[in-house]
Amino acid sequence: MSGSKILNGNAVVGQSGGPTAVINQSLVGVVETLRGRAGVDKILGTHHAVRGIVNDDLVELQDIPQERLERLAKTPSAALGSSRDKPDEQYCQRIFEAFEKNNVRYFFYIGGNDSSDTCRIVNDLANKAGYELRAFHVPKTIDNDLVNNDHTPGYGSAAKFVVQAFIGDNLDNKALPGIKINVIMGRHAGFLTAASVMARQHAGDGPHLIYVPEVAFDVDRFIADVDRVYGREGRCLIAVSEGIRNAANEPIMAQLVARQEMDAHGNVRLSGTGALGDYLSETLKAELGSALRIRADTFGYLQRSFAGCVSTVDAEEARQVGRKAAEAALLGNLDGSIAIQRVSDEPYKVEYKLIALDDVAAKTRTLDPRYIVNNCDIDESFRQYLAPLVGRLPVVESLRTR
Amino acid sequence: MSGSKILNGNAVVGQSGGPTAVINQSLVGVVETLRGRAGVDKILGTHHAVRGIVNDDLVELQDIPQERLERLAKTPSAALGSSRDKPDEQYCQRIFEAFEKNNVRYFFYIGGNDSSDTCRIVNDLANKAGYELRAFHVPKTIDNDLVNNDHTPGYGSAAKFVVQAFIGDNLDNKALPGIKINVIMGRHAGFLTAASVMARQHAGDGPHLIYVPEVAFDVDRFIADVDRVYGREGRCLIAVSEGIRNAANEPIMAQLVARQEMDAHGNVRLSGTGALGDYLSETLKAELGSALRIRADTFGYLQRSFAGCVSTVDAEEARQVGRKAAEAALLGNLDGSIAIQRVSDEPYKVEYKLIALDDVAAKTRTLDPRYIVNNCDIDESFRQYLAPLVGRLPVVESLRTR
Repeated sequence: MSGSKILNGNAVVGQSGGPTAVINQSLVGVVETLRGRAGVDKILGTHHAVRGIVNDDLVELQDIPQERLERLAKTPSAALGSSRDKPDEQYCQRIFEAFEKNNVRYFFYIGGNDSSDTCRIVNDLANKAGYELRAFHVPKTIDNDLVNNDHTPGYGSAAKFVVQAFIGDNLDNKALPGIKINVIMGRHAGFLTAASVMARQHAGDGPHLIYVPEVAFDVDRFIADVDRVYGREGRCLIAVSEGIRNAANEPIMAQLVARQEMDAHGNVRLSGTGALGDYLSETLKAELGSALRIRADTFGYLQRSFAGCVSTVDAEEARQVGRKAAEAALLGNLDGSIAIQRVSDEPYKVEYKLIALDDVAAKTRTLDPRYIVNNCDIDESFRQYLAPLVGRLPVVESLRTR
Repeated sequence: MSGSKILNGNAVVGQSGGPTAVINQSLVGVVETLRGRAGVDKILGTHHAVRGIVNDDLVELQDIPQERLERLAKTPSAALGSSRDKPDEQYCQRIFEAFEKNNVRYFFYIGGNDSSDTCRIVNDLANKAGYELRAFHVPKTIDNDLVNNDHTPGYGSAAKFVVQAFIGDNLDNKALPGIKINVIMGRHAGFLTAASVMARQHAGDGPHLIYVPEVAFDVDRFIADVDRVYGREGRCLIAVSEGIRNAANEPIMAQLVARQEMDAHGNVRLSGTGALGDYLSETLKAELGSALRIRADTFGYLQRSFAGCVSTVDAEEARQVGRKAAEAALLGNLDGSIAIQRVSDEPYKVEYKLIALDDVAAKTRTLDPRYIVNNCDIDESFRQYLAPLVGRLPVVESLRTR
């Protein structure tokens, strides 16, 4: 992976896929590490990911004062704009032309597994064309589904939002008892939905049932689960992943949305609709009785964008992966992805490793089966994994346990 | 409104209607002011509002250490449990029997306009029965719709949630441009939806359109509004009240939910479903083109229950209204409601007034028409009203204004 030590040219940095609360930390980490370093001339931010490269829609970042960069780092969502475009061969050809034209020799792409795959393809084409490019993937995804990573930047803050939402909603459901369904983001991996387990602080606290995409979702079993919990607790708080699938591995959502909508990566749209929650709620009503108080909320885009709910550790690590990618490029590495690996739980300690793009691209990590209990719950041991990633949480007081 | 100075007996305090982030502050305000005072023996919390009174499901609160009360005050949702029951004559008869049996002479009911009406009815029956009761309504509602109040406890924190959600979602919508609809709570009053205006920090920021229940909602005009903004901005962020109504004053939601569900107050259920957002999103797709990226989120119960999003001023005022109600009762007043009235904007200053139950019960305050612009926006002057109620907000940085 090692090339010549000093490569003269410009750098391009882009942000791709779904924004997170800390993706700008990674952007700032790249910029502050690259600027002023031998070989690096301009640091160009590409607007809306690969699209900005081919459309020559770039912004110079090297002269932004550190003070403004610090404010930017604390701002949620992708400041450069994002995109879900997945470049094909022709698209990549245009990216090279733009890179050559602008003498771009450093490329940093902040994104998830689809984005790391884009990064890999662009890099492969660069290699074939004999164009010396240092291409680095900087990890980001609230889904936490990158292989060879203990966790990903963006996950901790989104998980913190989910936990705080459940801490409050558990109390709301206790005050006005009924059946409450909360739908959480996560296409293939249940990490974000599993985070809801940390909301339990007192005996009887919800979520009482947790459904993740890793387990086939069976409607009849779901109804029986809810009936059992409701009989026991007089209420039932449920966490459901938007990506839950039937035994044939088809998303439940795929059967519900009137107009099937696919993204550029061939995925059915799951977010931005209350359809899944409403379907589950209607199903329970039809089976368990229409007099029951049954409600569904879909946390939607708030999970990744809400201003003012950021995990300190997540923010720090997002900054670090940006810095490490830039350092790796400056040290002469040709390509790779920065992976976060946990060294110890107590004290919490991680290390950052440079891994091959092939070791992360287009692969999906899912929840370890040992965390999944009876197909409808998450083991309490998941707290140990999650606790350092979300940081301090509100502690609530109760007048009685039930 | 004045009775004998010292009335010997027990006190009952209850929490009714939708919980808020600060309703426990009011509970603690009542308890800490009453205890140890001449005339007051036990302070009984009623579980699930009026239901706990008739079912003798009460909890003694006078001996809870202040430290635990402080933690309880900071806990969102109604710690005593709540209810949406509206007592009829027979129900009230049972309440009196319970009050007589327990020698209850002080009654504090924390709730919104439906709850203040309940308080009034109970009090009227007490008067008719010649039973000396000091009955006080303590204001609470995220809807901010109590007449003779500048604002209500619970509103500031819910508004803070809405503003923070829009600050983040505006950036998310800017990063991945499209049309985004956010549905916000509020049956008759658009105060909470109007709060979204405060999310605008830079030129071009959304929400670009704001629809409140005070203005008849016209679907054709809505489509034209969105088309116009999308053409101008390349994106469109929309705030919509769940309570929007057509020209015939029927909630749009009433036409959408398969099984009409009414609460005890005869209201159609609006929350706990994504139906309105999905309907508006499908309508825009059908009219403006299915290739557009259109998403809808419904903020749902998170607005009132999210743990860790509390306005400092709101928390303080919620505590004060509880204290003031207890003080009024101890001073010998027979009944009333505590109203918050604003003395000045800068410095922000309020005073608490004891008003008659009739002056607040079963009446609904709506948004002053001067705040509503072109039927689809909120005037910037609303910020002056709202700013002190939500307190400090996250400030975000931008790389460009568009």
